Amino acid sequence: MVKSKRLVFARQFDGMPKESDFQLVEEETPALKDGEILVESLFNSVDPYMRPYTRVLPTGITMIGEGCGRVIESKSSDFPVGTVVMHQYGWCTHAVLDTKKPDPERPIRKAPADYPKDLPLSLLLGAVGMTGMTAYFGFLKLCEPKEGETVFVNGAAGAVGSLVGQIAKIKGCRAVGSAGSDAKVAWLKELGFDAAFNYKTVSSLDAALKEAAPYGIDCYFDNVGADFTSTVLNHMNLYGRVSICGSISTYNDNEMAKGPYPFVTILSKQLTVAGFKVPRWFKEWPKGMEQMAQWIKEGKIKYKEHVTEGFENMPKAFIGMLVGENTGKAVVKL
Amino acid sequence: MVKSKRLVFARQFDGMPKESDFQLVEEETPALKDGEILVESLFNSVDPYMRPYTRVLPTGITMIGEGCGRVIESKSSDFPVGTVVMHQYGWCTHAVLDTKKPDPERPIRKAPADYPKDLPLSLLLGAVGMTGMTAYFGFLKLCEPKEGETVFVNGAAGAVGSLVGQIAKIKGCRAVGSAGSDAKVAWLKELGFDAAFNYKTVSSLDAALKEAAPYGIDCYFDNVGADFTSTVLNHMNLYGRVSICGSISTYNDNEMAKGPYPFVTILSKQLTVAGFKVPRWFKEWPKGMEQMAQWIKEGKIKYKEHVTEGFENMPKAFIGMLVGENTGKAVVKL
Repeated sequence: MVKSKRLVFARQFDGMPKESDFQLVEEETPALKDGEILVESLFNSVDPYMRPYTRVLPTGITMIGEGCGRVIESKSSDFPVGTVVMHQYGWCTHAVLDTKKPDPERPIRKAPADYPKDLPLSLLLGAVGMTGMTAYFGFLKLCEPKEGETVFVNGAAGAVGSLVGQIAKIKGCRAVGSAGSDAKVAWLKELGFDAAFNYKTVSSLDAALKEAAPYGIDCYFDNVGADFTSTVLNHMNLYGRVSICGSISTYNDNEMAKGPYPFVTILSKQLTVAGFKVPRWFKEWPKGMEQMAQWIKEGKIKYKEHVTEGFENMPKAFIGMLVGENTGKAVVKL
Repeated sequence: MVKSKRLVFARQFDGMPKESDFQLVEEETPALKDGEILVESLFNSVDPYMRPYTRVLPTGITMIGEGCGRVIESKSSDFPVGTVVMHQYGWCTHAVLDTKKPDPERPIRKAPADYPKDLPLSLLLGAVGMTGMTAYFGFLKLCEPKEGETVFVNGAAGAVGSLVGQIAKIKGCRAVGSAGSDAKVAWLKELGFDAAFNYKTVSSLDAALKEAAPYGIDCYFDNVGADFTSTVLNHMNLYGRVSICGSISTYNDNEMAKGPYPFVTILSKQLTVAGFKVPRWFKEWPKGMEQMAQWIKEGKIKYKEHVTEGFENMPKAFIGMLVGENTGKAVVKL
């Protein structure tokens, strides 16, 4: 028997989540049945998407999210003790997983057999995990960037945005990003972004885009949504592609943000605007993970992690990520 | 020398265009130079797109639009007298065209050599012309309809919409349309639409869509825009495709229509929303024209024309089309 902890989604969020919206529960893990494994989390993920997902969740369940852990007890020959897995069992220190009847909504994935030994395991939640796949597939599949084009990404110092800009550079594009602090902007320039600006301090987003992308934007990778996106659309070039990954500016709103409809702009500039969730390309993930790991080893992709220590600090890490405290991927080390 | 007439875009429209915004000019056509042809219009087109295009046009020029005419004088061996051509020289009874230095923005196109003799030449502006290509390419390329899917089109009794619904049926889809009168709705049912409703008399667009498309909408071909489109997006299925062809509900607005941003819906349903103008596929038009002509001959595509007689009545025909007087393609017979 092992003592395990989990954080329960105790109260529906009203605007910005509060630490008191979560409840810590401690319990003993049950004895394993045949085919089951007991996983101890090494790292848990906090991501923007969790905020809107809670809208349709019942309270009282374990807060959702991905974890990366190690098998510490096993009644499955496929998952011997020591196996590293990623799972979707939410904010918990331990999870009992049934390897015989895996939940299709919450697949158990093993770390790739060829995962480089010199890379931290936390990257399996970051650049070589869901975050990396979000950048890789969401950008390449929907924006179809061509050499010489201008790519703009907002939330560019975030986990996904920072990877999108670097993939854009690898593909021979001009990468432009926006972020919410001067320190983040400085980091974007270190990463090789051709232009970057602090959207909180520019005189206007319109003027900043005009300066940073003087020939217009061909590919727009959107993490922010609403008024921000409405403004960016005015800077898109003919036949531009927009990949909608997130809408973090609106996640705490209780009502849909309003503004001018974009349909006439989409029509007159012949834009393609597409939204996605990354499990859509799940079958292709192994290829994407291999590519991201390779780029990291070659030094073509750099990453930063914002690590919060201690399971009990997950709500704090989540709220911090929503207000933009993190640069790069936000993870919690257990 | 031939007396020719043209209608000048004399005043920038304020809201709905008025007949007094146009000015009739009569003049003699100049003698032809080498390589030039004189074309006498048989039919001129009035289309919704003309309304928004005028926003960026200087007043004083000949009103824009497509014409179908016959060469009545020729100094070009490629275009002998009698040749039928389509041109973009605007609202005129006659046009002198330079076949040696054709304006790339206003290409001269010959009627296809194999154009069926039993089809009226007016169809070269309609189902076998730009209108048909708008429906054919705009729908098939961007919506990529699959057998068994639900296709919704608004402005469905219009020139383009009525063709989109019929192409949807040919592709094995369920076709749903909306129009602005009971007579139009009756015609849509004659054309084989599985469901159709009068959007002006339904209790709510939301309820009408729920009833007409109970399993949701996979493909949406949009001619109307703004609030109408905002409502339809709520009925789209996961991975739905939206082809934005027009925005007729907003063409007379002086300010951009406002409402809830669609970005979160596009994201959560993983929609693809694309706008287009049909010259984009110009190279593929011959293939599309051949297909449309064949479907018409096979009785798979039916069409209706709303013919206004007399060149002087072009402004009236244009305004009538904008308020929805036409069923099917609006043309002016000279």
